[in-house]
Amino acid sequence: MRIGIVGYGNLGRSLELASEKSSDAELVGIFTARDPDEVKSLGSSVYPLSEIYEYENKIDVLCLCHGSSQALPQIAPRLAEHFNTVDTYDNHKEAEGHKARMKERSKSGNHTSIVSIGWDPGFLSLIRLYAQSFFPNPSVNTFWGRGVSQGHSEALKRIDGVKRAIQYTVPREDALTLAGLVCHPLSNTDRHRRVCYIVAENGKEDLITNEVLKMENYFSGYETELHFISDSDFDNLGRLPSHRGRIFALGSSGRYKEIKHSLYLDLELGSNPDFTASVMLAGARASWLLYNEKQYGAYSVFDIPPRYFLPLKCQNVNEYL
Amino acid sequence: MRIGIVGYGNLGRSLELASEKSSDAELVGIFTARDPDEVKSLGSSVYPLSEIYEYENKIDVLCLCHGSSQALPQIAPRLAEHFNTVDTYDNHKEAEGHKARMKERSKSGNHTSIVSIGWDPGFLSLIRLYAQSFFPNPSVNTFWGRGVSQGHSEALKRIDGVKRAIQYTVPREDALTLAGLVCHPLSNTDRHRRVCYIVAENGKEDLITNEVLKMENYFSGYETELHFISDSDFDNLGRLPSHRGRIFALGSSGRYKEIKHSLYLDLELGSNPDFTASVMLAGARASWLLYNEKQYGAYSVFDIPPRYFLPLKCQNVNEYL
Repeated sequence: MRIGIVGYGNLGRSLELASEKSSDAELVGIFTARDPDEVKSLGSSVYPLSEIYEYENKIDVLCLCHGSSQALPQIAPRLAEHFNTVDTYDNHKEAEGHKARMKERSKSGNHTSIVSIGWDPGFLSLIRLYAQSFFPNPSVNTFWGRGVSQGHSEALKRIDGVKRAIQYTVPREDALTLAGLVCHPLSNTDRHRRVCYIVAENGKEDLITNEVLKMENYFSGYETELHFISDSDFDNLGRLPSHRGRIFALGSSGRYKEIKHSLYLDLELGSNPDFTASVMLAGARASWLLYNEKQYGAYSVFDIPPRYFLPLKCQNVNEYL
Repeated sequence: MRIGIVGYGNLGRSLELASEKSSDAELVGIFTARDPDEVKSLGSSVYPLSEIYEYENKIDVLCLCHGSSQALPQIAPRLAEHFNTVDTYDNHKEAEGHKARMKERSKSGNHTSIVSIGWDPGFLSLIRLYAQSFFPNPSVNTFWGRGVSQGHSEALKRIDGVKRAIQYTVPREDALTLAGLVCHPLSNTDRHRRVCYIVAENGKEDLITNEVLKMENYFSGYETELHFISDSDFDNLGRLPSHRGRIFALGSSGRYKEIKHSLYLDLELGSNPDFTASVMLAGARASWLLYNEKQYGAYSVFDIPPRYFLPLKCQNVNEYL
């Protein structure tokens, strides 16, 4: 499977590394809208994005590594008409629209795109759906963090006056305790705090604060902390690549007395982009296999039989049954 | 969705109860090879299994609740030609053959069968396959118990001279510790002990011991404890319906230093048959939906897009993304 990487930030770099170690992916090149000479890859060839259509027959699956708030929704549908793709689109509320646009373009170009696949949305989405389907009388809660949200950090950076920004998603301790005990779903806004560190242009702090707090699907309704800090303090912050996701599911059955069932899942990622890249490669396999079966269109993890994700060398699916 | 239950043991009874509480399943009746008058249901009609073909147009999906060691492999293929089915076939080593037989009969009768679905095989199989696919450099270990294995208990009861029997699967403590630390798979036999309580006919103890220890796929190779006890001690044992499954997955990425990723999943079932019944109902939904799309044949959880399992009332799949 020959892959290409579009967009070279943290995720693109992790994908480059993951493809080097992969048994079934060969990286053809990295495509960037920036000046290719300015992109310091780990060794792979870097090409201008404008030349990508010359690679239509040289690349089996394109891995789209842009963030969800602007670049990805613009670029992805155009590419989906010419390539099989995989992306990590993570704006939950707009995911359906993104998938519909990808489906239209993929179908018209006889290609296959896998949308919104990573650790969440992606892996944890699957756990939520299965828990909701398999548990009697289910209640499911997900907690993210502490960790940087790429989508939220990028959303902050798009705001006028923001020079640098990073957002940590942090579970609320009271909600973590409740989720293991009480059989009802807590709202996303009840479960998390959003902690933002921002380097702003002088005097823009109030305007930025206003923009952040009203941003639908990202910050509106959340307990949000904004810390305006200096460039040098931002440098000292570091940027932890780790992340974490936890899911609690509770259910009950029984006729005369209540019988309880519970699921606890704890996914700890040493590096969010590294793990996301690994899941994207699994998505690229699914994209390539579905394409070879002429199953064109756009697929989320909910639409894909699980066996399509297995590495090509793992032939005996029954080993995992 | 109109369902029928074939076989009325612990699982059949749990399914009867689960269907009463279900928003999308209506129980038509219970079918038994025993004398129907001897089967004390919770209130549903009980019919002789010999009359089941009269219900071909009155039942959408048959839930096959027999154990895997004898009754199920004999009965299931015959029924699969005339009905959509769901079963919990749990002999991992023979699962491929069972699926092949079900596929042949289902296809020839234009029906859909879902095979080997429960909490394990089933739910935990999915976690194993996804972990294997999504983790970089993966190592995955599953632990079962402490809890009764229906399949192993039934296997014991089939042995000549065994009057009553129950088998508890118990994780080995040393292996639980190792699995969270060491990035390589432990063998099934290294991870578990099998603890059997048996009421035997006088003088048959040695023959039974010999039969148990050599039973392939069930006891051979395991640390197996056999306790021969009296009828009254067996009564006093009780039979805990609870069970538990834990999965540890470890992975690593990184260029110069190793970055670790981990998954820990803990599924605790207050009642094994109740939870299995709930998963079977999800399987029945998938069977019915696939059948309506004319997707005939036999499917394991690895072949089914996850959205097929959702309760019919949960229409907005994006809620779980």
